[in-house]
Amino acid sequence: MTTPDATTPSPTSADDAAPHGYIVDKDKYLARLRRIEGQARGIHRMVDEEQYCIDILTQISALTSALEGVALGLLDDHLRHCVVDAAIRGGEEAEIKITEASDAIARLVRS
Amino acid sequence: MTTPDATTPSPTSADDAAPHGYIVDKDKYLARLRRIEGQARGIHRMVDEEQYCIDILTQISALTSALEGVALGLLDDHLRHCVVDAAIRGGEEAEIKITEASDAIARLVRS
Amino acid sequence: MTTPDATTPSPTSADDAAPHGYIVDKDKYLARLRRIEGQARGIHRMVDEEQYCIDILTQISALTSALEGVALGLLDDHLRHCVVDAAIRGGEEAEIKITEASDAIARLVRS
Amino acid sequence: MTTPDATTPSPTSADDAAPHGYIVDKDKYLARLRRIEGQARGIHRMVDEEQYCIDILTQISALTSALEGVALGLLDDHLRHCVVDAAIRGGEEAEIKITEASDAIARLVRS
Repeated sequence: MTTPDATTPSPTSADDAAPHGYIVDKDKYLARLRRIEGQARGIHRMVDEEQYCIDILTQISALTSALEGVALGLLDDHLRHCVVDAAIRGGEEAEIKITEASDAIARLVRS
Repeated sequence: MTTPDATTPSPTSADDAAPHGYIVDKDKYLARLRRIEGQARGIHRMVDEEQYCIDILTQISALTSALEGVALGLLDDHLRHCVVDAAIRGGEEAEIKITEASDAIARLVRS
Repeated sequence: MTTPDATTPSPTSADDAAPHGYIVDKDKYLARLRRIEGQARGIHRMVDEEQYCIDILTQISALTSALEGVALGLLDDHLRHCVVDAAIRGGEEAEIKITEASDAIARLVRS
Repeated sequence: MTTPDATTPSPTSADDAAPHGYIVDKDKYLARLRRIEGQARGIHRMVDEEQYCIDILTQISALTSALEGVALGLLDDHLRHCVVDAAIRGGEEAEIKITEASDAIARLVRS
């Protein structure tokens, strides 16, 4: 997991009309997702070449684990920035952010 | 998370030069895997554009579910063909095929 | 989440009054399940005593892993005995047994 | 898979002799956990009676889902109370609470 950078603007900072700036180490995620795309292409090719089923299943499990790793990293960033900021501001927005996060966690646990 | 080495024969390929013909509806799998590649590219783009974290997590859960669906389909084909054939031939090969399948199932359940 | 109705015969029980003898090391499973019951009671007590939430979650993850281990062991026994026997006998029963096994695997992967 | 030692204080209990009061609807959790204990006993009995393997697997999946439901509920309560409170107080404690929560989420997703 990542260490939060105190200098990273939170998503709702005044100068952040544009994209959500909560992703702490974007290049790392992009590299991991690039690898994940390559894994997906590799699985497509393995099926196309009718490679051995068990080998394909091994690659699918590896891809699923890699996706989970990305999801858990993004969720940690999200809790550490969006949810904490909302908690500090308080009120209904904090409630909404936590409900949203809990729902996302439930989808991850059950998928 | 290793990529299978193309030069390493899979367990059954030594005596089976032709492709494994067990995949029942190959075109269906190829179409699903093509969609999965598109989903992976979409997640990469969402992170690159710094879209909202929860939306990215939703897409990752959807991709994970799609991968599980492919894995469960391939596993069913594998049980129905390779494992049943090995069971009918009997002997050590049947044992090996089932150990292999059980290991693959364990990886899917735990990934 | 329904409890199986004791009056509904399971698929193979009609012609098989004796217990299903496929469980290879029953005492081992019974010991593991006894521990699992103890873990469930421990979690109940932790909630009752309002112990720290994260500690309770750790115990729930441990219990879930223990259950998965039992399920994967039973499934391996099942493939190795019931499914192989059905495959050797051939015909529709083999198809049914594999569909049943695949459905059970899908429930495990998705739960 | 260790059972927490009752004599080991949990991270926050040293300075907080009173029970953690974050569990929103304790009676609901206790009732669900009582049912879960009953499910665990039922699975033990099914194995002891050598009931049909697939039926036992169905019950294990149901029990796993029930445990996940409890875990997700407790985690939501935890985020909504402990984590939000720590975020408002700020400082290192907030960081620690979020790291703890992220680690617990990773264990749930991977178990």
